[in-house]
Amino acid sequence: MDFIQILDIIGTIAFAISGALAALSKKLDAFGVIIIAFVTAAGGGTLRDILLGVSPVSWMTNMNLVYTILICVIVTFIFSKRLLKLRKTLFLFDSVGIGIYTVVGLEMGLIAGLHPIICVTLGCISACFGGVIRDILVNEIPVIFRKNIYATACIAGGSVYFILLRFNVPENIIFIASGVSVIMIRILAVHFKWQLPRPYLEEDDEKTQF
Amino acid sequence: MDFIQILDIIGTIAFAISGALAALSKKLDAFGVIIIAFVTAAGGGTLRDILLGVSPVSWMTNMNLVYTILICVIVTFIFSKRLLKLRKTLFLFDSVGIGIYTVVGLEMGLIAGLHPIICVTLGCISACFGGVIRDILVNEIPVIFRKNIYATACIAGGSVYFILLRFNVPENIIFIASGVSVIMIRILAVHFKWQLPRPYLEEDDEKTQF
Amino acid sequence: MDFIQILDIIGTIAFAISGALAALSKKLDAFGVIIIAFVTAAGGGTLRDILLGVSPVSWMTNMNLVYTILICVIVTFIFSKRLLKLRKTLFLFDSVGIGIYTVVGLEMGLIAGLHPIICVTLGCISACFGGVIRDILVNEIPVIFRKNIYATACIAGGSVYFILLRFNVPENIIFIASGVSVIMIRILAVHFKWQLPRPYLEEDDEKTQF
Repeated sequence: MDFIQILDIIGTIAFAISGALAALSKKLDAFGVIIIAFVTAAGGGTLRDILLGVSPVSWMTNMNLVYTILICVIVTFIFSKRLLKLRKTLFLFDSVGIGIYTVVGLEMGLIAGLHPIICVTLGCISACFGGVIRDILVNEIPVIFRKNIYATACIAGGSVYFILLRFNVPENIIFIASGVSVIMIRILAVHFKWQLPRPYLEEDDEKTQF
Repeated sequence: MDFIQILDIIGTIAFAISGALAALSKKLDAFGVIIIAFVTAAGGGTLRDILLGVSPVSWMTNMNLVYTILICVIVTFIFSKRLLKLRKTLFLFDSVGIGIYTVVGLEMGLIAGLHPIICVTLGCISACFGGVIRDILVNEIPVIFRKNIYATACIAGGSVYFILLRFNVPENIIFIASGVSVIMIRILAVHFKWQLPRPYLEEDDEKTQF
Repeated sequence: MDFIQILDIIGTIAFAISGALAALSKKLDAFGVIIIAFVTAAGGGTLRDILLGVSPVSWMTNMNLVYTILICVIVTFIFSKRLLKLRKTLFLFDSVGIGIYTVVGLEMGLIAGLHPIICVTLGCISACFGGVIRDILVNEIPVIFRKNIYATACIAGGSVYFILLRFNVPENIIFIASGVSVIMIRILAVHFKWQLPRPYLEEDDEKTQF
């Protein structure tokens, strides 16, 4: 098992635990918790594969991912209270997951010969969409639309990838530099409470329906 | 038309009526009712096909399914009050549908050469996902996350399939035994109000957001 | 750039602006607005492509669409107040978009050799589904289920397509006549407040859950 695979499993663990905790806080039953954990961890990659036409989608042929998620759910059940206290550690895990998923998604787009903007979008979808489905399933406006730095970090890190690519930096270094950028921007953004502009309408009771 | 096809149509009928009734109880208009009925009946199979890379997805080339759903919607419009009184019959239909959809999805996974756990998951998705999309569209937390025996029955029945497969039981008998297991577990679970463990956090106002 | 492509871009512009305005009225941040605009404009076509097995889905290889949406979001940010006053113009744009998307989706179904009913459904999905995902993401019951003429116009216009096809009308004329039917029905329906029958249950507190 190489370095990237280890990081990949760390990312999956973080996402699965984050999903399981969200489901527990909504008081879902055991099965609901498993589904939400699974969707949070595998949802982004699934949408990426569907959009690219990769079939069967990757979790179907990757039992490591499936076992990892199941173990995470069991651990979360047992240690749910303690895990909530480890929130900073989990946040770190989650950021690592986002960093890795972004670069993996982006590289799959490159392999398919897509435009850099589309590749960055794919990376962003891989990293963020699991959380979006999780929020839809538990009936909330996805957190990504309210705490934007999540996706902005992916976009910034993805841009780093293409800038370095232009300067002929070796591929492994690009991968790490780009992933680390995502992780650092995310951590700094949360630490310093960075926010994107949020231009709102004053008369927001005027609904816009077509 | 063979036995399985007849069962398949019974399942579709039950799902379509269940969807139409849910839409009516949300006071949607005629078109909304048709969509919700369609999604409830065809949604699980559609996701299964997308995940497996079967295209075009099966309802697109299966007009029987489409006509069955349209007829069900019309019948539901006309007899909506009487149908609500037949709830037990509908519940039975619905259980039969779940049983059949589970085994069909599972077998499609087997044909694609997937791992047994993935096959059972596919069966479960085929049987349950239509209801999940229905609930998302009418803006509720999917019932599957609140009344778990739904999916647990699919998993148990799917496991029966692989246990019998190991003992070289003939395929037709496996199909029926596995489907009947799903149906029986579901019916018993609802009758005796079985529930999965529901481990919840006491301080659930502490949100877990990443 | 030919006539159809110009119409296609007009449709995309209208959908992107309609999505961006919906996101602004929900007070999402800049990134959330971009996603919602993108999903509203590209979501219907994406689902159409996934269902048909077209991969990668079309927006991934169509940078015009991507640039158009980004420009629309920027314009919406700057002129959001003025745009809300142009609501009638936007409604017209939106109707044009629906008309075009319906016929394009329908023709893709025809090329795939599907049954007319399925083709009309595909056209309807292409035109309406972007709005459905938009509404799910901002956590509302999709407007399509409450203001049905949206989809009914697509179905009626799609039917015009197949009636004209039977009379051997030239393809270009069929395209335009069918698209214009969708647009006219939509505009007339909104102007005269047409509504589909809305048969509701009196005792709607009796939930129907399976």
